[in-house]
Amino acid sequence: MKYFKKIEPIKYEGSKSTNPFSFKYYNPNEIILGKPMKEHLKFSMAYWHTLTGSGIDPFGSATVERSWDDNAENEIDKAKVRVKVAFELMEKLGIEYFCFHDRDIAPEQDTLEETNRVLDEIVDIIEGEMKRTGIKLLWGTANLFGNKRFVNGASTSPNADIFAFAAAQTKKAMEITKRLGGSGYVFWGGREGYETLLNTDMKFELDNFARFLHMAVDYAKEIEFNGQFYIEPKPKEPTKHQYDFDSATVISFLRQYGLDKSFKLNIETNHATLAGHTMNHELRLAAINDMLGSVDANQGDLLLGWDTDQFPTDIYGGVLAMYEIIRAGGFTTGGLNFDAKVRRPSFKEEDLLIAHIAGMDTYAAGLRIAARLWEDKVLEDNLDHRYRSFNDGIGKKIVSNEVGFKQLEEYVLAKKELNPNEPGKQELLEAILNQYIIG
Amino acid sequence: MKYFKKIEPIKYEGSKSTNPFSFKYYNPNEIILGKPMKEHLKFSMAYWHTLTGSGIDPFGSATVERSWDDNAENEIDKAKVRVKVAFELMEKLGIEYFCFHDRDIAPEQDTLEETNRVLDEIVDIIEGEMKRTGIKLLWGTANLFGNKRFVNGASTSPNADIFAFAAAQTKKAMEITKRLGGSGYVFWGGREGYETLLNTDMKFELDNFARFLHMAVDYAKEIEFNGQFYIEPKPKEPTKHQYDFDSATVISFLRQYGLDKSFKLNIETNHATLAGHTMNHELRLAAINDMLGSVDANQGDLLLGWDTDQFPTDIYGGVLAMYEIIRAGGFTTGGLNFDAKVRRPSFKEEDLLIAHIAGMDTYAAGLRIAARLWEDKVLEDNLDHRYRSFNDGIGKKIVSNEVGFKQLEEYVLAKKELNPNEPGKQELLEAILNQYIIG
Amino acid sequence: MKYFKKIEPIKYEGSKSTNPFSFKYYNPNEIILGKPMKEHLKFSMAYWHTLTGSGIDPFGSATVERSWDDNAENEIDKAKVRVKVAFELMEKLGIEYFCFHDRDIAPEQDTLEETNRVLDEIVDIIEGEMKRTGIKLLWGTANLFGNKRFVNGASTSPNADIFAFAAAQTKKAMEITKRLGGSGYVFWGGREGYETLLNTDMKFELDNFARFLHMAVDYAKEIEFNGQFYIEPKPKEPTKHQYDFDSATVISFLRQYGLDKSFKLNIETNHATLAGHTMNHELRLAAINDMLGSVDANQGDLLLGWDTDQFPTDIYGGVLAMYEIIRAGGFTTGGLNFDAKVRRPSFKEEDLLIAHIAGMDTYAAGLRIAARLWEDKVLEDNLDHRYRSFNDGIGKKIVSNEVGFKQLEEYVLAKKELNPNEPGKQELLEAILNQYIIG
Amino acid sequence: MKYFKKIEPIKYEGSKSTNPFSFKYYNPNEIILGKPMKEHLKFSMAYWHTLTGSGIDPFGSATVERSWDDNAENEIDKAKVRVKVAFELMEKLGIEYFCFHDRDIAPEQDTLEETNRVLDEIVDIIEGEMKRTGIKLLWGTANLFGNKRFVNGASTSPNADIFAFAAAQTKKAMEITKRLGGSGYVFWGGREGYETLLNTDMKFELDNFARFLHMAVDYAKEIEFNGQFYIEPKPKEPTKHQYDFDSATVISFLRQYGLDKSFKLNIETNHATLAGHTMNHELRLAAINDMLGSVDANQGDLLLGWDTDQFPTDIYGGVLAMYEIIRAGGFTTGGLNFDAKVRRPSFKEEDLLIAHIAGMDTYAAGLRIAARLWEDKVLEDNLDHRYRSFNDGIGKKIVSNEVGFKQLEEYVLAKKELNPNEPGKQELLEAILNQYIIG
Repeated sequence: MKYFKKIEPIKYEGSKSTNPFSFKYYNPNEIILGKPMKEHLKFSMAYWHTLTGSGIDPFGSATVERSWDDNAENEIDKAKVRVKVAFELMEKLGIEYFCFHDRDIAPEQDTLEETNRVLDEIVDIIEGEMKRTGIKLLWGTANLFGNKRFVNGASTSPNADIFAFAAAQTKKAMEITKRLGGSGYVFWGGREGYETLLNTDMKFELDNFARFLHMAVDYAKEIEFNGQFYIEPKPKEPTKHQYDFDSATVISFLRQYGLDKSFKLNIETNHATLAGHTMNHELRLAAINDMLGSVDANQGDLLLGWDTDQFPTDIYGGVLAMYEIIRAGGFTTGGLNFDAKVRRPSFKEEDLLIAHIAGMDTYAAGLRIAARLWEDKVLEDNLDHRYRSFNDGIGKKIVSNEVGFKQLEEYVLAKKELNPNEPGKQELLEAILNQYIIG
Repeated sequence: MKYFKKIEPIKYEGSKSTNPFSFKYYNPNEIILGKPMKEHLKFSMAYWHTLTGSGIDPFGSATVERSWDDNAENEIDKAKVRVKVAFELMEKLGIEYFCFHDRDIAPEQDTLEETNRVLDEIVDIIEGEMKRTGIKLLWGTANLFGNKRFVNGASTSPNADIFAFAAAQTKKAMEITKRLGGSGYVFWGGREGYETLLNTDMKFELDNFARFLHMAVDYAKEIEFNGQFYIEPKPKEPTKHQYDFDSATVISFLRQYGLDKSFKLNIETNHATLAGHTMNHELRLAAINDMLGSVDANQGDLLLGWDTDQFPTDIYGGVLAMYEIIRAGGFTTGGLNFDAKVRRPSFKEEDLLIAHIAGMDTYAAGLRIAARLWEDKVLEDNLDHRYRSFNDGIGKKIVSNEVGFKQLEEYVLAKKELNPNEPGKQELLEAILNQYIIG
Repeated sequence: MKYFKKIEPIKYEGSKSTNPFSFKYYNPNEIILGKPMKEHLKFSMAYWHTLTGSGIDPFGSATVERSWDDNAENEIDKAKVRVKVAFELMEKLGIEYFCFHDRDIAPEQDTLEETNRVLDEIVDIIEGEMKRTGIKLLWGTANLFGNKRFVNGASTSPNADIFAFAAAQTKKAMEITKRLGGSGYVFWGGREGYETLLNTDMKFELDNFARFLHMAVDYAKEIEFNGQFYIEPKPKEPTKHQYDFDSATVISFLRQYGLDKSFKLNIETNHATLAGHTMNHELRLAAINDMLGSVDANQGDLLLGWDTDQFPTDIYGGVLAMYEIIRAGGFTTGGLNFDAKVRRPSFKEEDLLIAHIAGMDTYAAGLRIAARLWEDKVLEDNLDHRYRSFNDGIGKKIVSNEVGFKQLEEYVLAKKELNPNEPGKQELLEAILNQYIIG
Repeated sequence: MKYFKKIEPIKYEGSKSTNPFSFKYYNPNEIILGKPMKEHLKFSMAYWHTLTGSGIDPFGSATVERSWDDNAENEIDKAKVRVKVAFELMEKLGIEYFCFHDRDIAPEQDTLEETNRVLDEIVDIIEGEMKRTGIKLLWGTANLFGNKRFVNGASTSPNADIFAFAAAQTKKAMEITKRLGGSGYVFWGGREGYETLLNTDMKFELDNFARFLHMAVDYAKEIEFNGQFYIEPKPKEPTKHQYDFDSATVISFLRQYGLDKSFKLNIETNHATLAGHTMNHELRLAAINDMLGSVDANQGDLLLGWDTDQFPTDIYGGVLAMYEIIRAGGFTTGGLNFDAKVRRPSFKEEDLLIAHIAGMDTYAAGLRIAARLWEDKVLEDNLDHRYRSFNDGIGKKIVSNEVGFKQLEEYVLAKKELNPNEPGKQELLEAILNQYIIG
């Protein structure tokens, strides 16, 4: 414990605490709906934003103050010390999972061989820290978008060599994920998309994208990697059109190419809203298609049009996401990964803790509230009542496929008056939701 | 009390109540920051949505069930009975103010003379109800956008006769507003904008718009109407570009044409977000320009691009709006007018009450929370601390205009190192705000 | 020819004509790419906007001046005269197809029986006009969103009786479409969506939606209706979330429920952009999935967030849509239907012609330009060149599925340097596109 | 001429040329509306994007291939060689103006003194190149957003030392702009805005912003810099809210603080659309307020929510912008500055030329078309006709302020029927515009 010396491990102090370095809602071992909060939430630290995020943005350079970076002698040393920082930070926060891209943990070298050698060196250190702390790998992934070789895409590049390189890189990333016992592996199609249709053969690129994923499935079998594969939808940014636009698009793609048994979704809040959806819509859609895998917990600013990746502090987001997760039976392989970065002006080391606490408390409070909504059957009872006309009579015949247009026309013509509609009660439900939140 | 017979006057029952026809947070006479909640909030019913809203939308016809409308013999009778309904509804809800357009309360007739005669007839009834109940008029206005004569604008129409008609109609609306003791009069430029610049002389139209407002100011003096004039910003819809785009635009327009002493702003939440702003941004901007007049309390759906005019249920909206209002010293002539309509599927009469209760409770809870933020000086102390470098030294010289570029260059060159920046603490402040909300 | 007496049939006068009542680019029988322009374009009039559009919007009443409506004695007479107007208008414009909803052509009556009787009466007249003029029905559909009974959806209503009614109505609409020789039938899910997930069982509703479409497929077989079924994507409006969000979503839904062999897409420009896509993206996606059926030709204002349904005048839109259609082999059952309404201030009868001429010329010019792009192989040659690395070597092995991650890693490790990337040439392609447009 | 050896100076070859390194529409000395095209257009190269742009984006590293950068020994050498490249590029393209930020042309050093010394060294070289080539400085500016010291703003920073530093930096930037004969100086408020109102004293920050601009005005007088000051509006990005939101906001701010005589606007297309406006709206608004100064010519993607800064290729944009500029009397101090960057995949040196050619041709074609629209008085005659009712009768009395509400009411009551409205003719005008474009 040397990087955050001044900060004690974060403890639950309850909602009245004014200590910024305490949890107000997250009490890891408190039992909610029959299991500890931490098992519901499965918080994960995102290595990229937290360890390698610099505060750079398209209009300005790095802002963050990171004493450990400053003291490192070279990029490999920096990578090594960041492992220590990462685990100390997770210990301080009581975060039991993490996620990484290959290039987050180790810098790329001149050749792939050398890159992989350095990667292994860092993975050794990570493995040691995992053993020491019991912290687990939620999922791994490969960064197939940052290097300039991926300028025109990775598996969807028009350059076959780039496809090959992406394959080789993914192979290695899968191997280290397996080695570290990762319970999943994510494909976020960073540059899998297009800038302009004028120069794009969309069908060819989608075919290649699917081909690449099939190779990954095959290789997982070969090396007996049993973690869950995920695709992470995003509609745009960095490319003008990202092929994995939203949950519906990804589900469609997976089914079309026979990949739907091998993948689930990793759904991100900010990506949902950039696609014009609420996060709970995306979660629900995934859940009813048995595709709800894991969550990138963050939030966007709905008045801004880019991926702001803010730490989640919107309590409605926390409640409604946790409600969908509870409704879907909870996480199995997945968890809540904070794919979130401290705001550029939150450049102090302590802001890393403050921001994670804010996010963890938002989801912890969300869990508490969602659990009460679920136990009280506030929404589910309303649904049962609302759709009850399909439980018998003509409704039952419809849902059991006993009738067609002809019989339904006969039914309507014979009936003097249709059963009246009932109001949707949106305002009432929103007011009740507020009561659960405000208390 | 004959239209909402089954519903008792709405009472405060506290936050644990499950009675949909009770207030959970609004306790009208409870003292907050030294005055009753109702004086802080000054809730107002919007006659248009509540009495004349039908549930029609661009893709479908009316849905609302209104027994009083069905029983009316003709449009004038309907207008008369609606007055009774309106006041009974306000009494049931304990709403002490209302707002209306001339055409909400009385249907237009074949000639302006006849229209005005019918209008006076209805105003007589309203006046009687106001006396009976003590309910007051927050503001009146003229509907200069619904009738097809305003297809190309009202005061910005290219047709001089339409300008004249709009003037005559506004004259009458001002007269009845004065007669009913209205504390304000609103100009919402419904069709004051353009569809395409290809056919628009923007300068001419803006000049005429200002000319029209000057005429209104002159006429107010003439009839000794002392209510506050307001302009209500909106960026688009119905026209492609509305001249009163947002608060900044309106303030600019008013100053340019020498109207800034005669007008304040009536700011609507849904209009703020359509313009790309938060509501609290718009309120703050108005406040620091001494232009914060009144509020149209509603909310939009930030994933939709039109004016949904939903009843406000977002607690962040309630808290942050009330915080700005408290910070600005509270309402004088203005209030919180529910320019909100029940959702189209909320078509029952009782939904009118439920929706108003939802909105009132959101702002009441918002007031309670904002008041605590204000009393605890959570935000204000942080501001004092954050900007303290301007209290002495070079900072003080800057704000007292004692230095220019030359002196500042000298200062910088002489100083070895600049005072360091401090982090913005956004995540921490958002987490604290959540604590105040969730409790 | 009695309704547009003053206007001669619209003739092609070439691009220099200043006669507003002439075509500048549309020369119906001119041969482009081996067939007459009119066979490429297959223009269709949308009965709803053109005959029943009134200029009403959420903030104002009807503006259009329609002498034939004013002279009609009742709603049924009005419906009858509108048939004559419609066909005269199409004749004047040389439009050879039309599309309608059941409720566009005949007003709803007190009972379904009576409604259907009146509908048949009007269909008789339409049939007569079709024979007289040779004009054909591109597609029919049922309006399952306007009547208040559909307030909570049609096939996705929580009320079984409403599902039944929608079925009966669709049955009849399919029958009249068949009778009139319609080459297609469209399902636009007007209210098939939700307002809030708080009260929605998404899975149940989607299952019912699919069930409804299966009934339609079955009934088509039963009555031997061989027209093409289409679904028309739209992301939002009127509901907050429309189930048929975009092409990808609809394709996914159709495949999931085993409906993909029975349906193609009817893609609308304004719906594409509301979903965050370009129109050519939606067309390409449909085409590569063999789902490109028909087009609703209009345009939105990308700075506005609702369905403005403007007549298409953007030449880029015209060129790029026609390019995708040519690339896909042209229309079979589908065509270009002007799902577009005259702007509210374009309220004169002659504006109906002017707006259609504008739209037809935009697509005609678009066809001319797209045909030259296609013939010159400007874009296709670039694609061949850009993706050539997959024609041999490792690229060929990838696309023929001969290699996996292991072989690709070996390839990369063995290769000293990867083949370099080539630039995307977006600016150049856009400049060339401009040359084709500007001439 | 050593950096673009293979490319001959770009010549006008007319619209049929297939030479990518030729102008199709830009013929610099061709007379349009009485003066050479180049005097209408006054093209300017943006030093930042063109010389220092690297292709970096929030998800990936640099992509551009720049042989001159690779060959430079250190950052100062790189800065020097870039000057040569810049002028050779401008010569090749026939661009006669350029714009820069201080930090574009010379890298920041450890102290302000040293930074300024290096800056002077580079300015010497630039001055030499300007003399050699006759190329002129359109405007200079200071980069007050990139360095981390500006993380909380520059003149709106809560840290007084940062205000001081920004002042010192601006002083120097003004001095070098004067020295190089710059005809203008731009203030783009890169970080002048806020991330969250929770920590922001908006009034204090705006006051300081104005204070800073007054210091600039004072200092300009002192050093007799007679160039035009401009403010460049932008609504968001990098900050959540930028104080210079749009033209209306900036005009308002300038008037409020008594700065309106000293500043005009530098309007950027992509900023206009991010604010929800068309570019021609922003230009018109500036023009009618006598604030139209200069233009940052680029374009955004309206389906994306961030500043893409694409080279302008939309011909509608080119035509309508040039139309507004012609209508306003043409540029005086301002010009068309390509604040545009090659797409990330356009990473070759030659793409710099191709992209500029695309942009120049778009505006050149735009000028040609706009000039014909202007000469033919297509739009202006329509305006005269449309607003003619204000030329006599009641209209004339209105615009000459002879009547008020009372007289207008009398007029309306006395008049049997109002003069009818006339249609807006939007579709017709759009079709005519297309004729001018397509030819």
